[in-house]
Amino acid sequence: MTKHIVIESIWPCVDGGRSPIKRVVGDTIAVEADIFRDGREIIRAVLKWRKKWDEKYQESPMVPLINDRWRGEFTVTENTRTMYTLEAWTDPFASWREDFLKRMPQEPRLECEIKEGIRLIQTVLARAKAADKKFLNDVIKKLDGDGHRFEPICALLKDERLLGIMTRLGERADAVTSTPEMEVIVDRERALVGAWYEMFVHSQGTVPGKMGTFADAKKRLPDIRSMGFDVVYLAPIHPIGVTSRKGPNNALKAGPNDPGCPWAVGGKKGGHTAIHPALGTLEDFDDFVKAAKESGMEIALDFAVQCSPDHPWVKDHPDWFYKRPDGSIKCAENPPNKYEDIYPLNFDAADWRRIWVEMKEVLLFWIQHGVKIFRVDNPHNKPVYFWQWLIEEIQSEYPDVIFLAEAFTRPKIMKALSKAGFTQSYTYFTWRQSKYDFAEYMKELTQSGVQEYFRPNFFTNTHDVLSPILQQGGRPAFKTRLVLAAFLSPSYGIYSGYELCENQAVPGTEEYLNSEKYEIKIRDWNKPGHIKDYIKMVNRIRSENRALQQLNNLKFFHAENDQILLFGKKTADNSNIILVAVNLDPFHVQETSGFIPAGDIGARPGGSFEVVDLITGQRFTWTEKIFIKLDPQGEPAHILRVEKKF
Amino acid sequence: MTKHIVIESIWPCVDGGRSPIKRVVGDTIAVEADIFRDGREIIRAVLKWRKKWDEKYQESPMVPLINDRWRGEFTVTENTRTMYTLEAWTDPFASWREDFLKRMPQEPRLECEIKEGIRLIQTVLARAKAADKKFLNDVIKKLDGDGHRFEPICALLKDERLLGIMTRLGERADAVTSTPEMEVIVDRERALVGAWYEMFVHSQGTVPGKMGTFADAKKRLPDIRSMGFDVVYLAPIHPIGVTSRKGPNNALKAGPNDPGCPWAVGGKKGGHTAIHPALGTLEDFDDFVKAAKESGMEIALDFAVQCSPDHPWVKDHPDWFYKRPDGSIKCAENPPNKYEDIYPLNFDAADWRRIWVEMKEVLLFWIQHGVKIFRVDNPHNKPVYFWQWLIEEIQSEYPDVIFLAEAFTRPKIMKALSKAGFTQSYTYFTWRQSKYDFAEYMKELTQSGVQEYFRPNFFTNTHDVLSPILQQGGRPAFKTRLVLAAFLSPSYGIYSGYELCENQAVPGTEEYLNSEKYEIKIRDWNKPGHIKDYIKMVNRIRSENRALQQLNNLKFFHAENDQILLFGKKTADNSNIILVAVNLDPFHVQETSGFIPAGDIGARPGGSFEVVDLITGQRFTWTEKIFIKLDPQGEPAHILRVEKKF
Repeated sequence: MTKHIVIESIWPCVDGGRSPIKRVVGDTIAVEADIFRDGREIIRAVLKWRKKWDEKYQESPMVPLINDRWRGEFTVTENTRTMYTLEAWTDPFASWREDFLKRMPQEPRLECEIKEGIRLIQTVLARAKAADKKFLNDVIKKLDGDGHRFEPICALLKDERLLGIMTRLGERADAVTSTPEMEVIVDRERALVGAWYEMFVHSQGTVPGKMGTFADAKKRLPDIRSMGFDVVYLAPIHPIGVTSRKGPNNALKAGPNDPGCPWAVGGKKGGHTAIHPALGTLEDFDDFVKAAKESGMEIALDFAVQCSPDHPWVKDHPDWFYKRPDGSIKCAENPPNKYEDIYPLNFDAADWRRIWVEMKEVLLFWIQHGVKIFRVDNPHNKPVYFWQWLIEEIQSEYPDVIFLAEAFTRPKIMKALSKAGFTQSYTYFTWRQSKYDFAEYMKELTQSGVQEYFRPNFFTNTHDVLSPILQQGGRPAFKTRLVLAAFLSPSYGIYSGYELCENQAVPGTEEYLNSEKYEIKIRDWNKPGHIKDYIKMVNRIRSENRALQQLNNLKFFHAENDQILLFGKKTADNSNIILVAVNLDPFHVQETSGFIPAGDIGARPGGSFEVVDLITGQRFTWTEKIFIKLDPQGEPAHILRVEKKF
Repeated sequence: MTKHIVIESIWPCVDGGRSPIKRVVGDTIAVEADIFRDGREIIRAVLKWRKKWDEKYQESPMVPLINDRWRGEFTVTENTRTMYTLEAWTDPFASWREDFLKRMPQEPRLECEIKEGIRLIQTVLARAKAADKKFLNDVIKKLDGDGHRFEPICALLKDERLLGIMTRLGERADAVTSTPEMEVIVDRERALVGAWYEMFVHSQGTVPGKMGTFADAKKRLPDIRSMGFDVVYLAPIHPIGVTSRKGPNNALKAGPNDPGCPWAVGGKKGGHTAIHPALGTLEDFDDFVKAAKESGMEIALDFAVQCSPDHPWVKDHPDWFYKRPDGSIKCAENPPNKYEDIYPLNFDAADWRRIWVEMKEVLLFWIQHGVKIFRVDNPHNKPVYFWQWLIEEIQSEYPDVIFLAEAFTRPKIMKALSKAGFTQSYTYFTWRQSKYDFAEYMKELTQSGVQEYFRPNFFTNTHDVLSPILQQGGRPAFKTRLVLAAFLSPSYGIYSGYELCENQAVPGTEEYLNSEKYEIKIRDWNKPGHIKDYIKMVNRIRSENRALQQLNNLKFFHAENDQILLFGKKTADNSNIILVAVNLDPFHVQETSGFIPAGDIGARPGGSFEVVDLITGQRFTWTEKIFIKLDPQGEPAHILRVEKKF
């Protein structure tokens, strides 16, 4: 049969279907496409989807919108990779029917037209059952036997049941399926929404100079949970190499009691599947994971694909590393800098396939120990294709595993890692400060198409990044950066010490002074000046308001003063609407007039609305034109919920 | 070897590479893509192209722009379909070299690093010839023998010849090629630029009631050529059916002397490969084609895939048509309208493959008779896939054949026909009238991506379309619509009678009154009030100015008055700059201030420039702020060339 139907411009779709889109369980995916054919024939289209490792399709009808654009939707109910495609075909009966209804009563040879319709009904008769069969036979009888009078036949054809049966049973004789089949990675909710807390187990102790243990870390869980966090991410917990071990503040030589950098993975006691003996045993780790789970949190492990010179792989698989001409192994470097305590794996080794498999084994080991979230260190230094393979391998068996890419790298490769399958990614949030910065960056993340596959996780700080505004802006900056991270992105995180407003950097850098990357820290977690209550409030507001658990519903509103960022998020049904105003200047009181189009928050245009301040509990009646004043020393941000609209 | 390199976001590219782009011989195609890999290694990339039916690639280097975006270009020199793709690979020597140049002179084990470089040079030594080999051996000697002192080695490495040889001879060990391979249809110049003149041969005679002949038509060629046209498009020239023949003004019944509609193709004397006996013989046709060619013009034939009930195919291949239940053949219809004089072909016939081949045979027949341009009637009623096949079949043998799609249809299918291979397309130009209309439509045609595959042919009128503005606007409208068509689009056309400002429509419609679709017309081609001199001038200006022979160089400028459209076109090197101002209102004098940024026309910002009025020959010195007054009864358009810039 001649091919007639064209299906093109399908949305959502990443790189022409070469990369998957991402959603979470329960999401409804609206799919649109241009679908058309030559001539005037009526076409039908369905959206089809199946689990990736399952042949069987489900389908739902698509409906034409305007200008040959069609739309359908399906809801993903299972945490598994899912494939979707479109199918369209010509409906000869509906085409005939439409033509017939437009005919003139006095048209010659109407009889012949009617016979054509009967012939079409007869083609489906064999597939019709019971009531349908009887109904169709009745229709045929009436069509054939009513003296072929025009009006009664038109009335008969207008019966929607007839069209319904014919559409349902009609053969899809010239069906065309869109290619390539497209993929959606359906993750669990935590892939989209979560508040993360990063910490080093070795700093959770209480005795100066003594490494903290999993038992110590376990004691800190209630405090972290009470701040409202969902995920506790641990810096690497494995044995640390002694060869070329770094001392405090990245000193070339470590002292005898220096712990070394946890990212120099592996030592005499084992490598990526071992626990640093000073932190405890594997049983202690299991116990810690269990305690976290019981308190309502999850543990995320660091996955750093690199070794210390003392890692067992160095002895067992010397061919997995870069060899220099003198036979020695090359350390990590970025000339003129060298990282003598770290050996990268050589993904171009002859036995590279074995390295891939070993990495998978490492992940499976921790998955067996209850870890379902991995924060992957520097993924942009390993092949994108490796991650694509690894993540799919793991998720085909454990679809609930989440991968966060620590890719502070160039934009294209950052995105490519997400396209390859990373569930979430670190971002440039830390370096975005002005209103213009946020407008541009959030537009890219939420509206440019990137939102289909890239899920940001906004970290206010990390063990590597203490941004200038935090170094200089004091407590007000810690509060506003928290509000920005937590309310602009459904996933966000802080690195421990943030709650204490720690802001001492190595001068002229974004590195923490006396970083716990190289030494053990003992902190008073209730040190005066902390913002734990503020964090708790922010996380409570996040968890109580569905609007804040989405990414793409972000909308910026106009504020005259460029130091005040005004934005809102709302659920599609307008049942939950949050407005946020943030003073970006941590040093001065700022005030502004602003404009919130009432229509944008579901009120009647020009209407007014009641808001409740979720920090103070005060209620105000606002019109579209608003006035805001924010004192960094008081409340540097307003967080409001729209309660009523007038 | 592990795959490292990612190539994505290639431009130009239509639908992810599923459809070809279009260019003309001599065009340089700039191709951009995101190309990157993990880590810090230096990569190389080339743009590769080959003729579609030829394995052998040529290649040119790509260069990085910014942010992992790369650019390369190639010039298409032959009228043939061409494929292009990108290849990229890691350059280990350049990577090693860059690292080395960043090292510290006192770095330990520099010796070992140098050995690594030597090893890399040795890998290409076998492929090096004569001078290169000697050069490389010298380099190795110096690297190895100079006491491994840092500075002299750096000096050696900075020698560009070394990098040049290594880049040229280095193995592309991990080369990645982008998929799918992409296609460019390289047409001859006429595909992009041409002035068309449509006429009915039967109306070229001089005796009322007597059909014009090819001999008559031949006599008209000098007049048409002197107006500056390049292509003469003929309404169908085949025998016309007598069954259900239509009379004047589409009357249901024809009189005995009515010629019938030329689109009711086929009669006793033959079908699509026959000539209507009243017009002449095949020899007369050949003679006419030859005369046109000698005068510098080409003939375009109408290709209407449909038959009159008297077409030989109806008898010879009754199975090629739609059969009704009573065995009769279904005529064309769009209920409640029927076109009894036309039978469509049934592309869903069992023998559809044979129909496709027969259509190709028809085209080949006329190609043998010197026809290289086909204006395809109503292509949107036949499968897009059929056209894709047919056009490629023809162009694989005759790449100089041009297909114009008469697709006055919905936008998506209009574009799909171009994607399928139509060289040019009719457009909505006739229905675009306001400044906003033109701004939006021209943006779509020249800047939205559509310009990569869709070439508009702006017809001021056709035998089917006499737009309201022409019906009402008189001579001024005929002049301005000509200027708009001819200067906005490099391909444009008129239907004969336009030069006489014929504007009588069937009331309330866009149909010509007493249309020559159904009757023979005899005209005085020099009737007072004609605009032949104006047309001649417009075509002369088009042919003398390269800027007007491009599509995508269009730029609109601001004019305060919405009735005045102000635009410009210039060559990339600024050597030819044309400015056009058109009064869209045929009834009133309109005046406006306007603004032409001097930078946009290659002058210094804020500078002034001298323009010559190509209609009057007057010269003016203009600054960016201009004032224009256009009298529809005088000169309703200014056409200016920028001569000097100050």
